[in-house]
Amino acid sequence: MSAAIFRCAIETRTSETNATGHIDHTVIPVWFELARRPIYKLFNPSEEFSTWNTIIRKLELDFLLPIHHRLRTEVRSQVSAIGNTSFTVTQELWQEDRLVATGRVIIVYFDYSMQMKAPIPEAIRELLEFP
Amino acid sequence: MSAAIFRCAIETRTSETNATGHIDHTVIPVWFELARRPIYKLFNPSEEFSTWNTIIRKLELDFLLPIHHRLRTEVRSQVSAIGNTSFTVTQELWQEDRLVATGRVIIVYFDYSMQMKAPIPEAIRELLEFP
Amino acid sequence: MSAAIFRCAIETRTSETNATGHIDHTVIPVWFELARRPIYKLFNPSEEFSTWNTIIRKLELDFLLPIHHRLRTEVRSQVSAIGNTSFTVTQELWQEDRLVATGRVIIVYFDYSMQMKAPIPEAIRELLEFP
Amino acid sequence: MSAAIFRCAIETRTSETNATGHIDHTVIPVWFELARRPIYKLFNPSEEFSTWNTIIRKLELDFLLPIHHRLRTEVRSQVSAIGNTSFTVTQELWQEDRLVATGRVIIVYFDYSMQMKAPIPEAIRELLEFP
Repeated sequence: MSAAIFRCAIETRTSETNATGHIDHTVIPVWFELARRPIYKLFNPSEEFSTWNTIIRKLELDFLLPIHHRLRTEVRSQVSAIGNTSFTVTQELWQEDRLVATGRVIIVYFDYSMQMKAPIPEAIRELLEFP
Repeated sequence: MSAAIFRCAIETRTSETNATGHIDHTVIPVWFELARRPIYKLFNPSEEFSTWNTIIRKLELDFLLPIHHRLRTEVRSQVSAIGNTSFTVTQELWQEDRLVATGRVIIVYFDYSMQMKAPIPEAIRELLEFP
Repeated sequence: MSAAIFRCAIETRTSETNATGHIDHTVIPVWFELARRPIYKLFNPSEEFSTWNTIIRKLELDFLLPIHHRLRTEVRSQVSAIGNTSFTVTQELWQEDRLVATGRVIIVYFDYSMQMKAPIPEAIRELLEFP
Repeated sequence: MSAAIFRCAIETRTSETNATGHIDHTVIPVWFELARRPIYKLFNPSEEFSTWNTIIRKLELDFLLPIHHRLRTEVRSQVSAIGNTSFTVTQELWQEDRLVATGRVIIVYFDYSMQMKAPIPEAIRELLEFP
């Protein structure tokens, strides 16, 4: 499997905090989506919505430590499994040198015109393995 | 002019607070957009995006008092002016019996296929005046 | 275990759609959080942040069908397991008569002053079982 | 007056688009808030919420052109007026070489412990003029 790790720096926003003083947990899926951008580009290099060809099937998040505003924040993403019609991205949220949350998302290769899943083409499969 | 006031109850969300303990100011445009739904329906009864025919030109918000989570919250909206190609909606945000914010939005009647503004049809104009 | 199902109607918002024309997947955790409000009230009847006593440990979401704007939308939530210091809420997202997403969230009873988890008090445990 | 222009690059997010295919107008206040960070730091160098000392009084936005996902996006912010207890920030949203929106926000110097506005201290006033 690919060992490539995609790193994405996040600038936290005041509107992403909540009244507990921390980042609201609902923000983490937004940051993780943003951090998957280089992976989505392997599937859809133009990044146009008209040629979009993936769909999220499952999302799992583990919250390990409170998530703070304005700390140095980075999402690290890695393709951790590739199936016939889907693949898994494992993601870590780091603030300074602490791992504060982890996630796992299963994404399906999807033909929007046919409204059905499809086998991941070999060319993309190779990119996922050796980006 | 129409005296019709459209009332929209808002259920505040935890993710809409920020670390000051209040509702983040960036949330108010979202609530005001939601509260304009009955006005948008006068323009586009199906509410389909494919037949959407308005576009926001200007938004002004005045913040009068801190906005709290979980108070009884209501937006009151009124069409306050109708021009040739645009109209103005004046909005108030009430929490319990206090007026906490006001807004004014100018919305243009817009032909998306031509990508240009157009005169508001007489039938819609009458609905705006006497909804 | 409790069979109580908490139902929460959701009014979808335009800003919650994305350019694919559907509701963005990152919105579902926000709706599910809102729908857990009656469960949080069992733990913290005042709903004040100063007495907040739970923290989210894990969130799992399954996306089954595209989620649409402006359909009749309801979240159904149920306490499905109660452990010593944590409990599980199972949630379903319904649009009209279709189940479009499901979720499972593990929430820890948390002493914010001590910054540590604590056993769920017996009185709250009974409320969770027989709300 | 200061001619200093604070530039803030924005990485647009998929969840910020809406079903029209463009960026939802409610996102612009979030980007503008983020872009004011260097100005807020003049008032509150630690950026701690416990020492926060400003409050938003008025926000005006003009939408000039559709705002697109994934174009090179920059907010340019400038302190355009300084009064006794408040100041004005004028902001521009650029995508590639097009000005797509402008904004003006009036921010009050606020003593949260006294819950009242206060004169902007001379030292901060000088920083606003010559950052």
